[in-house]
Amino acid sequence: MKLYDMVKAPNPRRVRIFLAEKGIEVERVEVDIPGGANLADDYLAVNPRGLVPTLVLDDGTRIDESIAICRYIEALHPEPNLFGLKPLEVARVEQWQRRCEFEGLFNIAAAFRNTAAPFANRTMPGTSPAFGQNADLAERGRVMTGRFFDALEARLSESRFLAGDRFTVADITGMVSVDFAKWVQLRVPESHANVQRWYGEVAGRPSARA
Amino acid sequence: MKLYDMVKAPNPRRVRIFLAEKGIEVERVEVDIPGGANLADDYLAVNPRGLVPTLVLDDGTRIDESIAICRYIEALHPEPNLFGLKPLEVARVEQWQRRCEFEGLFNIAAAFRNTAAPFANRTMPGTSPAFGQNADLAERGRVMTGRFFDALEARLSESRFLAGDRFTVADITGMVSVDFAKWVQLRVPESHANVQRWYGEVAGRPSARA
Repeated sequence: MKLYDMVKAPNPRRVRIFLAEKGIEVERVEVDIPGGANLADDYLAVNPRGLVPTLVLDDGTRIDESIAICRYIEALHPEPNLFGLKPLEVARVEQWQRRCEFEGLFNIAAAFRNTAAPFANRTMPGTSPAFGQNADLAERGRVMTGRFFDALEARLSESRFLAGDRFTVADITGMVSVDFAKWVQLRVPESHANVQRWYGEVAGRPSARA
Repeated sequence: MKLYDMVKAPNPRRVRIFLAEKGIEVERVEVDIPGGANLADDYLAVNPRGLVPTLVLDDGTRIDESIAICRYIEALHPEPNLFGLKPLEVARVEQWQRRCEFEGLFNIAAAFRNTAAPFANRTMPGTSPAFGQNADLAERGRVMTGRFFDALEARLSESRFLAGDRFTVADITGMVSVDFAKWVQLRVPESHANVQRWYGEVAGRPSARA
């Protein structure tokens, strides 16, 4: 297996943390997105959408979506379980993994790509059309990210981890979102004591440095 | 179990089709979103975000995210399988379920909520802040929906269903997206013969009327 990766980007980082939690090492190829390498012909032959990460299996099969890659790894290597075991836990993991994406990652990405200079003419990722930056969209993203932090605080005031009493892929997406928010100078308020407690715990795991 | 539902809305429809494929009947409560019932106190007590669907279990536990509900049902009732069995199939289902959401449903929702009169001051769903409509965002959504149709055509030119040779939850999200696009007068081009063939097959299943 080979993972097309970009060390700084949030989505490949989710996959690297997931692999580290499983104790799996995979060959990695860095794709220089700021330099435009994701839109060069040789990478478009790997991933026609120009996105990272992409996992390429030994027979050439490609899986080019972050959580699909994680589910593939989970199916091959069930331990330690990261997507839930009993029906209600499976639902809680899915619910919070997705809420962290929709309310966290996506809003932060909107705030970032609609303001950062290198993305002036590519606010949508990969081979998407060259839509220009939209200040209104950036501002919505910032407001919604603040609400995401509030949602995390409410959840973590009743639960040690996002999906319950143990670490799962939902915590990976949650932590990566909190770190990604720093790219647009948004930080979890100190007053959100439960998020601070949880973040300290998840960011302290060795996998967080993957 | 009780499902808080809205017959016309795309996300609850995904859950109803999923339940129909499993042969499961669940008590349903219609929530009148255009009339604002999702923002009334009694519904906010069920779902503080003011979103549908919500599944409430007999002990009062709530699952308030569409695909989390589907995964809960799948875990309780594994047959017929709709999320994949072998590792690569699990990955393909996840990949295409998510692509249909991110490239289909989300873009269509942006086009719809940023133009439809009843949503003039609530372009974000549920209890989100009252962001106004943004014509640029609606136009991006329309352009990206056209590209989504192209992605479906490319995939379905090589595969009978989205995830492979059998019907899965990816096809549910795909079909619901194609139907939702009609709300903004966008239709799969007649020239997209493989999408037409696939749509005829999936929309012809009894579950499509759920």
